[in-house]
Amino acid sequence: MYGLIGTIHAVPGARDQLATILVEGVGGMPGCLSYVVAHHLTDADALWVTEVWTDADAHRASLALPSVQDAIARGRPLIAGFGERIETQPVGGHGLGSGA
Amino acid sequence: MYGLIGTIHAVPGARDQLATILVEGVGGMPGCLSYVVAHHLTDADALWVTEVWTDADAHRASLALPSVQDAIARGRPLIAGFGERIETQPVGGHGLGSGA
Repeated sequence: MYGLIGTIHAVPGARDQLATILVEGVGGMPGCLSYVVAHHLTDADALWVTEVWTDADAHRASLALPSVQDAIARGRPLIAGFGERIETQPVGGHGLGSGA
Repeated sequence: MYGLIGTIHAVPGARDQLATILVEGVGGMPGCLSYVVAHHLTDADALWVTEVWTDADAHRASLALPSVQDAIARGRPLIAGFGERIETQPVGGHGLGSGA
């Protein structure tokens, strides 16, 4: 499996709107086992995003999906920048979807 | 929801054994929506653990479960220490279990 843990910094005041776009955009992505959007507790404009994919290729391929392209187009004006970007290799756990 | 993102450092050579204990110990925890154990890619002895709970109380209560107590007892000798511990507030996404 392939994992990502990262932060996205919204433009001031736009975090909730950006979070909604991200959550709406992640349904039905092939190979996506988990995609969780969370508020950063000490930075009012930041989000933590944690992802689990069957493999890195599935993650790369997702970026070409129409739903993801639409989310990127709508979210981009709301993004001030990116922070941490940590790649991991998930080995198991609870709450992993089917990836279908 | 309540989220945790953290690292656990295993004693040298014990990461796989510790990961197995963690994965085995997390089935059926009430209020646990996601619990993913992953290899750190640049530290051969470290694990990333990402968790989503219905609320912080459910996380605290889990520590008293017999299955978790057993995992703690078996895992403790394999743990060299803890690194990052980031609390988050998940707002949505994909792959979140029922918590039952």
